[in-house]
Amino acid sequence: MAGKKVLIVYAHQEPRSFNGSLKDVAVAELSRQGCTVTVSDLYAMDFEPRATRKDITGALSRPEFFSYGVEAYEAWKKRSLTSDIIAEQKKVQEADLVMFQFPLYWFSVPAVLKGWMDRVLCQGFAFDIPGFYDDGLLKHGTLHFCGFKVLAPHISFAPEYASEEERKGMVASWAQRLKTIWNEEPIPCSPPWYFGQ
Amino acid sequence: MAGKKVLIVYAHQEPRSFNGSLKDVAVAELSRQGCTVTVSDLYAMDFEPRATRKDITGALSRPEFFSYGVEAYEAWKKRSLTSDIIAEQKKVQEADLVMFQFPLYWFSVPAVLKGWMDRVLCQGFAFDIPGFYDDGLLKHGTLHFCGFKVLAPHISFAPEYASEEERKGMVASWAQRLKTIWNEEPIPCSPPWYFGQ
Repeated sequence: MAGKKVLIVYAHQEPRSFNGSLKDVAVAELSRQGCTVTVSDLYAMDFEPRATRKDITGALSRPEFFSYGVEAYEAWKKRSLTSDIIAEQKKVQEADLVMFQFPLYWFSVPAVLKGWMDRVLCQGFAFDIPGFYDDGLLKHGTLHFCGFKVLAPHISFAPEYASEEERKGMVASWAQRLKTIWNEEPIPCSPPWYFGQ
Repeated sequence: MAGKKVLIVYAHQEPRSFNGSLKDVAVAELSRQGCTVTVSDLYAMDFEPRATRKDITGALSRPEFFSYGVEAYEAWKKRSLTSDIIAEQKKVQEADLVMFQFPLYWFSVPAVLKGWMDRVLCQGFAFDIPGFYDDGLLKHGTLHFCGFKVLAPHISFAPEYASEEERKGMVASWAQRLKTIWNEEPIPCSPPWYFGQ
């Protein structure tokens, strides 16, 4: 889809890892389609995952009792969040498609990505990850809650136990999916009453 | 239980928060019992939650392809992990009881605590949190996997929507539980076959 903007939020320490390959193949395929692809490489950027009062520049609205949620919301309205958060939020806002690319480590996320979501999207909301029995992150969690339409996840299970050939197959199947990703429909998510609305 | 050592791993930015009160009451009650209580106050310590190659001092065992898990394990054997990790691991090793005290933010953990667990215990394993329908962190996850016997969690739901009186009741019920915590039996956890043993 020529002209579309894609943001890949990528969290892995080793560029030559399986995760690195999945990211590289996504950049290649989407660029081939004429998309503009931006990668937020969180480890390479040394992204700050700690949500602290340093995220708010200028005066706090309730200095006597620090609440990150309250202060971040007020600072967002006044555009007084720290510059690395504003830069990431701008990328998210401009993107037609945002991808999160990270190792599952069974069913976990690395702290640096958790920090990205906490600081850039909304702090600490419903961060349960697609586990063995549910898909809470997607259906009830951060992404849907923050207003994303969510596509089905793409999970490559246990690449460290797969053969080189099988891993290449996993990378190829990701590239294959990306060819038609713009035609995909969002998955059903939790209704508004789930959030008390 | 006089003479017992307790480690409280505490993650909250605001000392005067509800979480701060729960931590303070635990320190008071356990000290009263004659325990030695150590608090790792992760925000106050500015604890580094990013798991990176900086955690390994000296040479890497596989410099051509960085794997955090491999390198951290080798460095642990050689005692060449970075000093803040070694200090935390020592506290864990010496403790008879370890408590994790943090806001759930619905069913999430803050990135800084996630980073503590990743760097100090074992990276990224099975970090699903007691959600609405499961209790994976405890039964299958990081703690049990790392060799802890796990007591039932103590959760105070939605203190921000409770009255001042109700919040005081929550803090009091935590203090009450601590009076007999040394008599508690561990909860049943996943059997060894769950981990492929």
